[in-house]
Amino acid sequence: MTALTNQETIQRARRCTAAEDYDIGTRFPSVFVSAQGSWMEDVEGRRILDVTAASGALLLGNRHPRVVESITRCIAEHGTVFASTLSLPRIELAERLCERYPAGEKAVFSKTGSEATTAAIRLARAASGRDVILTSGYHGWHDWHLSYLRIGYDAGNRIGCFGYSRHALARMLDAFGDDVAAVIVTPEPAWFDEEYYRGLSRLCASKGVLFIIDEVITAFRWGVRGLNGTGNVPADLITMSKGLGNGHSISSVVGRRDVIDAYDTAGVAGTYTREVPPMAAALAVLDEIDGTQAHANAERLGGVLRDGMRDVLAAVGIPAVVAGPPMMFDVVMPSEQISWDVYRAAFDHGAYFEDSGTHMVTTAFTDADVDHALAAFEKGAREVAERHTFEADALSPERLAQFRAEAFGGELDDEVVRQRIEQTVQAVVERDPALARRLDPSCG
Amino acid sequence: MTALTNQETIQRARRCTAAEDYDIGTRFPSVFVSAQGSWMEDVEGRRILDVTAASGALLLGNRHPRVVESITRCIAEHGTVFASTLSLPRIELAERLCERYPAGEKAVFSKTGSEATTAAIRLARAASGRDVILTSGYHGWHDWHLSYLRIGYDAGNRIGCFGYSRHALARMLDAFGDDVAAVIVTPEPAWFDEEYYRGLSRLCASKGVLFIIDEVITAFRWGVRGLNGTGNVPADLITMSKGLGNGHSISSVVGRRDVIDAYDTAGVAGTYTREVPPMAAALAVLDEIDGTQAHANAERLGGVLRDGMRDVLAAVGIPAVVAGPPMMFDVVMPSEQISWDVYRAAFDHGAYFEDSGTHMVTTAFTDADVDHALAAFEKGAREVAERHTFEADALSPERLAQFRAEAFGGELDDEVVRQRIEQTVQAVVERDPALARRLDPSCG
Repeated sequence: MTALTNQETIQRARRCTAAEDYDIGTRFPSVFVSAQGSWMEDVEGRRILDVTAASGALLLGNRHPRVVESITRCIAEHGTVFASTLSLPRIELAERLCERYPAGEKAVFSKTGSEATTAAIRLARAASGRDVILTSGYHGWHDWHLSYLRIGYDAGNRIGCFGYSRHALARMLDAFGDDVAAVIVTPEPAWFDEEYYRGLSRLCASKGVLFIIDEVITAFRWGVRGLNGTGNVPADLITMSKGLGNGHSISSVVGRRDVIDAYDTAGVAGTYTREVPPMAAALAVLDEIDGTQAHANAERLGGVLRDGMRDVLAAVGIPAVVAGPPMMFDVVMPSEQISWDVYRAAFDHGAYFEDSGTHMVTTAFTDADVDHALAAFEKGAREVAERHTFEADALSPERLAQFRAEAFGGELDDEVVRQRIEQTVQAVVERDPALARRLDPSCG
Repeated sequence: MTALTNQETIQRARRCTAAEDYDIGTRFPSVFVSAQGSWMEDVEGRRILDVTAASGALLLGNRHPRVVESITRCIAEHGTVFASTLSLPRIELAERLCERYPAGEKAVFSKTGSEATTAAIRLARAASGRDVILTSGYHGWHDWHLSYLRIGYDAGNRIGCFGYSRHALARMLDAFGDDVAAVIVTPEPAWFDEEYYRGLSRLCASKGVLFIIDEVITAFRWGVRGLNGTGNVPADLITMSKGLGNGHSISSVVGRRDVIDAYDTAGVAGTYTREVPPMAAALAVLDEIDGTQAHANAERLGGVLRDGMRDVLAAVGIPAVVAGPPMMFDVVMPSEQISWDVYRAAFDHGAYFEDSGTHMVTTAFTDADVDHALAAFEKGAREVAERHTFEADALSPERLAQFRAEAFGGELDDEVVRQRIEQTVQAVVERDPALARRLDPSCG
């Protein structure tokens, strides 16, 4: 298709499609043409191991036989979209997701994680008749969620952020809980355990507020059934996407029937919600992870990788925190620059890690793949360590706080935070009710 | 897979996934299991002709050999998503879309029409540094666009609607044009001709405001290159989705390089923006419509269908307006109920029409298919006509105005409208600047 080098291909992309940061600056310089399992091959024929699971989109690795068979058969023998929106794969997938997750009574589908979280808050607002949403964590790039890191109130979108502070959430629910349609939280499994989320869930239940877990990343990676299933955290709705279709775009809102029944009132829609082939892919994914030892094996190998990376960093003398469940763990180093440099060097040794520091294996990983990843990581880490002197053996509390703030908005419980909480409460209580969204009668 | 009837399957879907209106009440009672070209087969083995093109998602019909070959080869031999976001099919598709549409200098991708329009206004806001968006028509189900039918101002989302009134747009641009990031319009080709849109485009250009055509439906149906290409209407950005991947979900924003270069600033993102197989499908679609007579043939057959439906309605005595380009024309009957009844009866005779009255053929249509569609439509129309007496031969101006208002918000230029325009101007001029969205620095 091309005889260009990676750099020439990136130049070509720069002219017609690439975003300077999103597509180039935050990625390592390979343009991939194919992948098998967790191994990718770029335009220069170089093979590189993917330790990002394609930003988590893959659960079984590329070209998994069961998924390829299911989706290509659907495309070639059945078709892609029909005049009506219901199909047998959609019904079967909904039934299986409802069996799979404790929250599940009904499931609806969309294409991306952002669309699933957007649909979830629309459903919560329509079902509850309330307007304010309280949130912690990243729920996608859509407009309602532009400001998500710091405790505060976005008046235009009627979104209050409580920054993973249980105290802030309790204070807000006390002050204006009757106006809150839902609390939606993205799990940060490296930083808060199941019991933390059970506490949020109980708090919402005690106030009669819907509790939504945004499991777009965790549904198949915090154990095999996510925070709601494996973690045993009660929720009214959960959202999921990554891994569900093994890279084929599909997402879902799964949860309480009476809330999802507000679909029409909420004006949720979308022509591609009916697209059948990604549903066929998802059914194959469920067959694979429920019928084989693949997921358990990936958890074992993820654990070996996580513990190995911790050992490497200790051995080469880079202070670090390595934490989280085996299939989505975080590595924090003394600075973003050092972190970038280590992974950039590891890339040159044949392993593509996520520079933000969250690492994800797929079920396609083998023991040899983990060995390769650790060898590349060790070479990279050693090269960087040799150019630096670190003052302490452990990361400073300030660095950890900075990482938490930048990664997911986690804040310390200090006086500044207490002031922000009170400002948020005041802003919500005094908000202009005319800003509540109105849905045109014929919309949706 | 099942031995259930259509009704039993719908009951099964009702319990686990179906929305009462969106999936059941607004659809005819078949659950389809497969389709070939434009013919679908439901769970009871009944074959029905699709005159909706699956809500416009299909351009070439289901299981088009060229598309099936391209996408299944990509899935089976290359893979689906990689660790980085650039790929050769993405680059090639961007280049070809930029060649294809006059607006095209750069193209970025997302999954759905709603995501493309959301990205387009985010890009316009980021590139212009301005905040207010002026709009007419439906741009999807996302939050920013909940109120879209009537002239007015949505303060929370900073969206002003001018209801396809050129006068309203001119008045608004005069009053606060310097605050307008973009004007975004969905073409309604049955109601406004190319020159109308050229007028909007000129008006925006004269005020230095970005002009966006939402070509999610029209890009391949208003001629082969949409309003921007075939219609020769200048634009800064266009959005497209339906038809692009022939039912496989993909959408694009195509347009001015300096605007699309604001991608990072705008915080647009999305894991599946990199999904390769729908891009492979889109390349096959472009090969087919550019390299064969398929599109020209579909336009011819769409014209035969449109004119035939007009003749049928005249023959059976149902007053109607039938208007629009051959591949997406509108049929307006005396009431929504009569319209529903006619299409419901046609469904029983083997043709699935869109009850809202916008009809779309695919390139899979044959002369025999058009004959079948017209025969089913005639039987249905005749059955309904026999139960009704119509007072006039033509639709009343009130009915046409009602249809326009419900379909796309078109309003008459009366005193009520003039008041709404002035109220809108006042609301924008006096708006609270604190409601402008803030993007967290690390977002995206």
